[in-house]
Amino acid sequence: MKRRAFIWLLGAAAAWPLSARAQMATSDSLLPSWNDGAAKQAIFDFVRATIDRASASYVLPEDRIAVFDQDGTLWVEHPMYTQVVYCLERVPALEKILAATLTGMSVEEFKTEAKKWLETAKHPRWNRSYTELAYQPMLEVLRYLRDNAYKTYIVTGGGQDFVRVYAGKVYGIPPEQVVGTAGGTKYGYGKDGKPFLTKEPKLILNDNNAGKPEGIHLMIGRRPYAAFGNSTGDRQMLEWTAAGAGERLKMLVLHDDAAREYAYGPAQGLPDTKIGVFTPALYEEAKKDGWTVISMKNDWKRIFAFE
Amino acid sequence: MKRRAFIWLLGAAAAWPLSARAQMATSDSLLPSWNDGAAKQAIFDFVRATIDRASASYVLPEDRIAVFDQDGTLWVEHPMYTQVVYCLERVPALEKILAATLTGMSVEEFKTEAKKWLETAKHPRWNRSYTELAYQPMLEVLRYLRDNAYKTYIVTGGGQDFVRVYAGKVYGIPPEQVVGTAGGTKYGYGKDGKPFLTKEPKLILNDNNAGKPEGIHLMIGRRPYAAFGNSTGDRQMLEWTAAGAGERLKMLVLHDDAAREYAYGPAQGLPDTKIGVFTPALYEEAKKDGWTVISMKNDWKRIFAFE
Repeated sequence: MKRRAFIWLLGAAAAWPLSARAQMATSDSLLPSWNDGAAKQAIFDFVRATIDRASASYVLPEDRIAVFDQDGTLWVEHPMYTQVVYCLERVPALEKILAATLTGMSVEEFKTEAKKWLETAKHPRWNRSYTELAYQPMLEVLRYLRDNAYKTYIVTGGGQDFVRVYAGKVYGIPPEQVVGTAGGTKYGYGKDGKPFLTKEPKLILNDNNAGKPEGIHLMIGRRPYAAFGNSTGDRQMLEWTAAGAGERLKMLVLHDDAAREYAYGPAQGLPDTKIGVFTPALYEEAKKDGWTVISMKNDWKRIFAFE
Repeated sequence: MKRRAFIWLLGAAAAWPLSARAQMATSDSLLPSWNDGAAKQAIFDFVRATIDRASASYVLPEDRIAVFDQDGTLWVEHPMYTQVVYCLERVPALEKILAATLTGMSVEEFKTEAKKWLETAKHPRWNRSYTELAYQPMLEVLRYLRDNAYKTYIVTGGGQDFVRVYAGKVYGIPPEQVVGTAGGTKYGYGKDGKPFLTKEPKLILNDNNAGKPEGIHLMIGRRPYAAFGNSTGDRQMLEWTAAGAGERLKMLVLHDDAAREYAYGPAQGLPDTKIGVFTPALYEEAKKDGWTVISMKNDWKRIFAFE
């Protein structure tokens, strides 16, 4: 009898939707790096409202889309965007790279180059790989949303081809779910007759500011239910998300923790560092329109996995 | 005892990978609208080679990408591409539409318009909705590949926004898995302060010929393992797919069945109708490089679901 009951329980557990299991887990086990507070609560409220079939805001699993800015939202952007560091550190080879790009650097070569650099480059403050500097609380949000059938996208002002190199390993996000600033490519044939794609110096999508909703339309084709950002470059993406019907989650990360990471705004009297600018006007828009501002200092128990 | 055995069997069945179950099913139940022959066999061989962990050509589930041209490959393109019919039938309203597009037709309005037209428009030959004219054998291939963890994409020369309107309903393919010829959009605000995206008369991606691999790189970011087409516009997409390592499936639909659908080429002496052109040169390239040509007449038991 015991064994039969156990088997029945196993079967029942298997039949129980994953989303319901996620919902029933304690909030501590779901987002362990978050302190209790309005930000954590906003995430839980949103997920519950959109996965509960009885809710007026229920969203079909196949319609669940969440978008995340990368620099400053998913990982560190100070003292300088990682991609800019990549370009600067490549200066000795830069002329060659530029020449190669213009005369036929293939998308495969670019991928290999960028991957190689990421494997050895270190952030000056923590002396760790850039790929270790993803924010642990955001990694938990990505997983929590995916466990509840949300398809998670990166929508970044950074280079699409660059971010795609590591997005799988760092965030569990496949290349086709990375939308970023993108240049054109040109199809051609090598001497061996094999086809290849060459990176072209032609801008197709400037995925910043208004370019974010435009990029979302081009690459995803529907409006997200959740959007996460940290700067004025994310404003239109959050507005576009907010303008949809039903429950929508709009969150902005505020970098107010100089001790554990960096402090910059200039919202809330924080220093204006020109990188990842969060203006007082954006802060006002967030407050007025019910977007949630995440305080790194108060809302995050820890910042990085290695802490 | 019987009940316990039954429960055990249920559990064992649930633990058995879906892919293995698909593989074990008889070929008749998997692709019932296909006649036995080289084309059907090529599909089975490809799937088995890429889902079997013991195979040298094994592909991780998360890497399984398959791309399908639409017009002439997934549905009827004669006597004229459906989207062109849409534009022509809208002639009385065309000036208004053009004007609206130029002065602020939103992406939502476009979607509503196109959807409305598709609900009532009929194909002149079968007097049925265009959305009923999807090829049943290809719907079975889409399902078979998806059952084996392949992510299926449409890569069409048609308008991306147009195809996205019905791709979910007709093919089970969500908007973000439709890559097509795409124009730009422009983000702005209405009188009520609400943001909207306006369609712009600016071409971002011409998803034909070399534009197909370029579009695949832009929107998917990795090389497909399987590619299906039917015309010279699909040549580069199949070449790009073929140039990857390991097992790759390259298939071209040949319209050689005037009785049940249409006959056109001009490959194999079929009439040259200028729409969905399949040249003798493409036929030669297919034969030389081991691509599989699907004969609608010989390989397909039936063409449409309603037959």
